[in-house]
Amino acid sequence: MPLVRIDMLEGRSAQEKAQIADCTHRAMVETLGVPERDRFQIVTEHAPGSFHFDRAYLDIERSDAFVLVGLTLAAGRSADVKQSFYARLCELLVQTVGLREQDLAVCLVENERADWSFGNGEASYLTIPKDRWR
Amino acid sequence: MPLVRIDMLEGRSAQEKAQIADCTHRAMVETLGVPERDRFQIVTEHAPGSFHFDRAYLDIERSDAFVLVGLTLAAGRSADVKQSFYARLCELLVQTVGLREQDLAVCLVENERADWSFGNGEASYLTIPKDRWR
Amino acid sequence: MPLVRIDMLEGRSAQEKAQIADCTHRAMVETLGVPERDRFQIVTEHAPGSFHFDRAYLDIERSDAFVLVGLTLAAGRSADVKQSFYARLCELLVQTVGLREQDLAVCLVENERADWSFGNGEASYLTIPKDRWR
Repeated sequence: MPLVRIDMLEGRSAQEKAQIADCTHRAMVETLGVPERDRFQIVTEHAPGSFHFDRAYLDIERSDAFVLVGLTLAAGRSADVKQSFYARLCELLVQTVGLREQDLAVCLVENERADWSFGNGEASYLTIPKDRWR
Repeated sequence: MPLVRIDMLEGRSAQEKAQIADCTHRAMVETLGVPERDRFQIVTEHAPGSFHFDRAYLDIERSDAFVLVGLTLAAGRSADVKQSFYARLCELLVQTVGLREQDLAVCLVENERADWSFGNGEASYLTIPKDRWR
Repeated sequence: MPLVRIDMLEGRSAQEKAQIADCTHRAMVETLGVPERDRFQIVTEHAPGSFHFDRAYLDIERSDAFVLVGLTLAAGRSADVKQSFYARLCELLVQTVGLREQDLAVCLVENERADWSFGNGEASYLTIPKDRWR
């Protein structure tokens, strides 16, 4: 399970928010080897005074459409695999909701297999065989 | 200090939300060795379109009552201790608010002692002797 | 990039919330070596029933003005540097918004350089030379 938090300024349509969440999950399935049903996402909109982001850090010009995607996921992906995720997510958001590629930031935090329970009071990845992670 | 974030769909009573937070803290005290007064929790309710969770991942059937508990805590607990926490939290929520045991997920993220300040501008766990962590 | 989440009870003015965010960024620039334009912050206010914090943990007396600052940042700062950040942030908040020094808690979580993308679908810290991190 990655746990996904998506933050943005308020003002998008429900449809566009759903599409951003869909794209994030699709990019994870395609590049991070995340199972199709392993989807847990929280989308939060913020008032302008509550979401501060620099408009030019690293000489990348951000707009009000800026989207910040945060993932907590089990360790084990290489830098190349992470890079593939950033590129694919960016591509999907450009294609699907017309996001400018400057308007996406991603932040990953890694934990361990023992750090997850998906139900039944169990450390699921320790008790459920890997071929049933779906 | 663990820092606790509890996320769920909107619609619960204030009492039930308080009970869920209470159970989470009690399970942490009982199984993770967290001091009784070491309680810092944020409870957030979400509209359906803002909280996406798969209803069947790992063949566990989740309902609208699904609760996601996230903990940031200092490293050092074994997988067995973590497992005890998941089991006890699940048990308490079933007993106290009638949660289905399929409707609880937990995600842990670990950090270090130096990563916490509890006040006075100090790295508390480096400056306060361990016998006063209460 | 550190990603910053600032949580507090509801009721502050917009100005005071902006000042708290400003102080947090200034302390990071001064003590953590964060570039001036590397600013990404989410400020969230909570109803009393949704934000639980112990009023006396570690014998530090907290009030309703309590502010919790969470940072996700790339690993590599020493405990001394972190300590400097806690002290400077506390000092700035006392000076600027009159916060009691007991009313600030901080929680850090570390990740790696490969865990960040700031735009253009790239793992920015792997693709952009360090002298352009500004």
